[in-house]
Amino acid sequence: MKLSRLGEFGLIERIRQKTPSGRGVRIGIGDDAAWIINRKGSSLVTADLLIEGVHFDLRWTSLYDLGHKALAVNLSDIQAMGGVPAFVVLSLGLPADFDSTQVDAFYRGFRALAMRTGVALVGGDTNAALRRIVSVCVIGHAPYPPLRRSGARAGDDIYVSGTLGDAALGLKLLQSGGRMPKKYSVAQLIARHHRPEPRVALGLLLARNRLATAMIDVSDGLLQDVGHVCQASGVGATISEARLPLSSAYRGIVEKGQTHTALTGGEDYELLFCSRPRDRTRIEKLSERTGVAITRIGACAEQVKGIAVIGKSGRVVPVRVRGHDHFAKK
Amino acid sequence: MKLSRLGEFGLIERIRQKTPSGRGVRIGIGDDAAWIINRKGSSLVTADLLIEGVHFDLRWTSLYDLGHKALAVNLSDIQAMGGVPAFVVLSLGLPADFDSTQVDAFYRGFRALAMRTGVALVGGDTNAALRRIVSVCVIGHAPYPPLRRSGARAGDDIYVSGTLGDAALGLKLLQSGGRMPKKYSVAQLIARHHRPEPRVALGLLLARNRLATAMIDVSDGLLQDVGHVCQASGVGATISEARLPLSSAYRGIVEKGQTHTALTGGEDYELLFCSRPRDRTRIEKLSERTGVAITRIGACAEQVKGIAVIGKSGRVVPVRVRGHDHFAKK
Repeated sequence: MKLSRLGEFGLIERIRQKTPSGRGVRIGIGDDAAWIINRKGSSLVTADLLIEGVHFDLRWTSLYDLGHKALAVNLSDIQAMGGVPAFVVLSLGLPADFDSTQVDAFYRGFRALAMRTGVALVGGDTNAALRRIVSVCVIGHAPYPPLRRSGARAGDDIYVSGTLGDAALGLKLLQSGGRMPKKYSVAQLIARHHRPEPRVALGLLLARNRLATAMIDVSDGLLQDVGHVCQASGVGATISEARLPLSSAYRGIVEKGQTHTALTGGEDYELLFCSRPRDRTRIEKLSERTGVAITRIGACAEQVKGIAVIGKSGRVVPVRVRGHDHFAKK
Repeated sequence: MKLSRLGEFGLIERIRQKTPSGRGVRIGIGDDAAWIINRKGSSLVTADLLIEGVHFDLRWTSLYDLGHKALAVNLSDIQAMGGVPAFVVLSLGLPADFDSTQVDAFYRGFRALAMRTGVALVGGDTNAALRRIVSVCVIGHAPYPPLRRSGARAGDDIYVSGTLGDAALGLKLLQSGGRMPKKYSVAQLIARHHRPEPRVALGLLLARNRLATAMIDVSDGLLQDVGHVCQASGVGATISEARLPLSSAYRGIVEKGQTHTALTGGEDYELLFCSRPRDRTRIEKLSERTGVAITRIGACAEQVKGIAVIGKSGRVVPVRVRGHDHFAKK
C-alpha cells in the first residue's frame, strides 16, 4: 500500500504493532515521548543521519540492508565507548508514493539487528520527503567509565578488530555497476559494506577490564580515525603496513601488496584502540573469548612524529589520506 | 566561509568551542558518543525530523528562527509528558556551499533557547545534503510519573494553554507572499509560527500535582490532537466553540466568529490536557502561578459520542478536520 493511502498515523500504528516493547521501556511508541529506565543513572547518546544519495544508494542497497546499517553505525559509536546500546529512536523521511512493503523491509532489517543486540525501538518521527532520510539516535548504558579518544600515551600499542578495507572494496564493486563475478569473496566484501557486524561484547570487555587507554570506531578510514585518536590524545602513531589485517577476500581482489584501501577506506566499523604493552597477553585472551580477531597494527609515538605508515622495507609509505569529509569538494 | 572550505571537522570544532558544557554532561561533543547523567535513572526521549520544503521554508524563515523552532518542537514533546528537557542531540544536513555564518545563526537561535531552558547540546552529526535537514533528539528527566495520552475519562474537563490558531495564521500570512501590513498583530502571529514558547513549568507542575489525567501538545491542530487523546483514552469529547482561546491578533485578522483555524491549524505547541472537574480551582491557581493562560474548552464524553464542536447556538458545528498527515495527497 502506498504511504499516501496508509497515512502517517496508519504507518506509525503499523510500526507500533510490530515492535515488541523491550526491557526498560515503560512507555514506547505512540505517545509524545518515550519513557525509559537507565541503569546506574548514566547514559551514552549518539546520533547519525543517513541521506539518500550521500550515504546510501537504493540502486544497490536493499531496504532490509539499509535498516540493518542505519542501526549498526550507531551501535558502533556506543560500543566504541565501551557501552551497551539499549534504546533507539528512529526518524524517517519517505516519499509519499513509497510502498509500505518497502518500509516493512526496512523495519525488518532494523528490527532483526535490534533484537539480536537487545536494543528497543522506543519512538521517532515519520515524514514525507523527496529523498529518503534515516535519522537514528541510540541511547546506551555505561556500566563502566566510557573509553574516550583522548587517553592514549606514547608507547601504547594500537590494535584493530576484524579486517580493514573490506567495506570500501565492497562499495567500489557495487559502484562499478558491471556484472560481478559470482565469487564468494565478492559477496563477502559487499556484505561487509551492507551489514557491519556489532562488536558490543569486545567494546564492553575492554571498558570493564580497563584494557584500552583510548578507543574509536573505524568509520572514516583507518588513518583518519587514528588521526582523531592522536589529536584527542596528543600523540603520534606508527602503523606497520605488514601487520594490517586483510581478509582473504581483500587479498584476492586487490593488486598484491595494495594496502591503500585498508589504510583509507571507510565504513569498516571495527574497533580501533590503544593499550599498554604490558596488557598484550590479556588482549590476546580477549580475542579468544569474544571470537573476534584483534590485531596489533602499530604503536603510539611522540606527537611531533605525526602519523607514519612503515612499509615492509622499513621505509615510510607515503599515503594520501582522504577519508570522509562530507563537505569536501569531490 | 563556505562549508566546503571549513570542512566537516572544522565545523564540528567550531560548534564544540561555542557550546558550553551543561549540567550532567560528563562527555560532550567530540567523541563517539556523549556520556550524560540521568536523574533518578529514568528518561524521556523524543525526536523530530525537519526537512526543508516540508517543514520549513527559508524564503521566510531565518536560520535563527529555525534553530529556535527545531529545539522548541522537541521540548514541547517532553513537556507534554510532564518532564524536564535536559540533553539534546542535533544532526544537520547542509549543502556544501552553505555559508558558515548561516550555520552560526542557526546555532545562535538553537543555543539561546537551550540556555533559557537548561538544555545541554551533547552531540550529533553533520552531513552534506541537497536540502537542509534538521534532526533533533531530546532526552529529558521524568521527576514524576509521565502524563500519557491515555488516562482521560468521560466527564473530565479539557483544557488548553495559551491561544489557538495563531501559528497557522502566521504561516498563512507568510505564505501569502504579498506585502504585509506592518501591524503589531501580524508580527505577533508570525512570531507564534516561528518561535513556539516552551511550557516546561506548566507541564511539570501538572505532573507533580497529578492534576492532568491525560496530556498532549497541540502540534497537528486542536481537533486532531483531541482525537489522539480520545483514541488513546477510549473517550469522546465535546469542545465548546465559544470557549476557544483566541488572541486579539487572531480576532483582528479573521472574519468575525471564524474558529476554523483555531480548531484545525497546527503548530501552536500549546499543552492540551484533561483534568477531573473537582480540580478546577487548583488548575486556576496553576495558571496564576505559571503566568500561562489556561482555558477550559470542553469535556470528555462517552466514546460513542465521538468528537463534537458545539457552537454558540448549542448546535453541533460541522468541521472538516484536516490536520497534518505528512503522506496525505495535497
